[in-house]
Amino acid sequence: MSVLIVGTIALDSIKTPFGDKKDILGGSAVYAAVASSFFAPTTLIGPVGSDFPKEHLTFLQSRDINCNALHKIDGPTFRWHGYYEYDMNQAHTVDTQLNILTKFDPVIPAGLRDTPYVFLANLDPELQLKVIAQLKKPKMIVADTMNFWIDSKREVLHKLIKQVDLMVMNDGEIRQFMETPNIPLAARRLLDLGCKGVIVKKGEHGALYFSKEGHFAAPSYPQEQLRDPTGAGDTFGGALIGYLAKSDDCGPENIRRAVVVGSVMASFNVEDFSLDRMKSLKPKEVRARFEEIRKCACFSELAESHWE
Amino acid sequence: MSVLIVGTIALDSIKTPFGDKKDILGGSAVYAAVASSFFAPTTLIGPVGSDFPKEHLTFLQSRDINCNALHKIDGPTFRWHGYYEYDMNQAHTVDTQLNILTKFDPVIPAGLRDTPYVFLANLDPELQLKVIAQLKKPKMIVADTMNFWIDSKREVLHKLIKQVDLMVMNDGEIRQFMETPNIPLAARRLLDLGCKGVIVKKGEHGALYFSKEGHFAAPSYPQEQLRDPTGAGDTFGGALIGYLAKSDDCGPENIRRAVVVGSVMASFNVEDFSLDRMKSLKPKEVRARFEEIRKCACFSELAESHWE
Repeated sequence: MSVLIVGTIALDSIKTPFGDKKDILGGSAVYAAVASSFFAPTTLIGPVGSDFPKEHLTFLQSRDINCNALHKIDGPTFRWHGYYEYDMNQAHTVDTQLNILTKFDPVIPAGLRDTPYVFLANLDPELQLKVIAQLKKPKMIVADTMNFWIDSKREVLHKLIKQVDLMVMNDGEIRQFMETPNIPLAARRLLDLGCKGVIVKKGEHGALYFSKEGHFAAPSYPQEQLRDPTGAGDTFGGALIGYLAKSDDCGPENIRRAVVVGSVMASFNVEDFSLDRMKSLKPKEVRARFEEIRKCACFSELAESHWE
Repeated sequence: MSVLIVGTIALDSIKTPFGDKKDILGGSAVYAAVASSFFAPTTLIGPVGSDFPKEHLTFLQSRDINCNALHKIDGPTFRWHGYYEYDMNQAHTVDTQLNILTKFDPVIPAGLRDTPYVFLANLDPELQLKVIAQLKKPKMIVADTMNFWIDSKREVLHKLIKQVDLMVMNDGEIRQFMETPNIPLAARRLLDLGCKGVIVKKGEHGALYFSKEGHFAAPSYPQEQLRDPTGAGDTFGGALIGYLAKSDDCGPENIRRAVVVGSVMASFNVEDFSLDRMKSLKPKEVRARFEEIRKCACFSELAESHWE
């Protein structure tokens, strides 16, 4: 099954304890589309400015990502400038230049409106709703967001969560959105608002999946080679939707596997800047790391004799 | 098999968003001993002052905890006064009165020196080493510590970790001790220093177990009823040693189960102040929650067809 991904396309300038890079490929939809492309035919929709380097387009096409519906807008591409210090769980923004992102009004070409698997990467929730309004009977819509939209468009997010199958947020975001530091409580409140399922990304602490049917806790890969965490959450979401599309199974058991696949892909992406690690990543490495995480998470039930 | 627990005994004054309590029963060894008593015959060694209320002693004895080797010292009992705000992951200390704790010099009675399972709850690492020196062929020594000792007695901790089977630390402590924000890297460095195994307690994010043989990630129970997190780590350690003693199996698979048992007991303890939840807790509730966590952690391998 095929995947449609809509979100931002960016040129990032990033400094971490492991390097300092300028105008490298980034953006929520780019990370997500590259991750998804490991699993399923993927279309990427997002805004590129007139200065968007051809080499990045060539790279995306080399991953068989359909770039025909990119929105080419006159002016400079969206730029994010940030850095990470000693504790790379925390991103610090130096500067955000929205540029042509302010003119982005996503139009889904007629031939793509029936794409069954859709990931709405981090973007203005009003635009995410506009995308949903154009879709024809999607099987699965997954949406991501960020603290900026929780601050500025809380009511729109309330509408959005009722129209998607899975909401993806990080731990800080769901705490902020549901106004409690307790993640399980925050998740229950979100479900009570009409959200069908929510995945909480916790970076180094793994991910949680909550739905009315139950709760799943996915461990993270014990990653020592963290060079640049940018795009980890987007990579997670893209891999999740890509894997669901490939297996074409949205049952709770398969969503659990998809969460782990998302964690695996994110754990690879943080090993290098931008999408550099994705350029050399092989499917067999993905599969091996999935199995490694499975072994890390495994424990057996208690023997009867231990409860005498 | 039986358990020996050595550590502090305290009267705590604690304020959380859910209440404000004065001079309630606490201390690292008390939380640990009560948790251990659910699984194995347990002896508690720690210092009590002349003001230690008889009712607390009665409660400990009601759990069949051997209190004959408590060190009764003239003067006021060790007191900790602290509070938790909105985010209860963070304890704030108002006041610490060491009182008779400064006179505590643990002597293990001859008849207890061959206790096979030993938990050295948080205490001055020099005293922890003194306890180890008195033991006769223990099967398993588990030790806990805290940031205060990492700051003030780093070299002593280096000696300690070589003499125990399992070191238990929380995420902040191991980051501080091994001087890296990356937990898997910190754990590897600790193992390289001669530590046989380390368990990293991450509170709401579960626990990790690292040894030369492998890595285990235990999820936490999705606890919404958090009223007072004091003693969660001590409860974890006590339940871990108690379960290991009950099953008398220190193999890597059983340590995994013991880590989950520790998480389960800690998740109960935080439901109320002091050890109040332990007073009503039933073994069948412990077992049911263990199975609940197992269901939360479960995911199956990838189908071959998903990797074509």
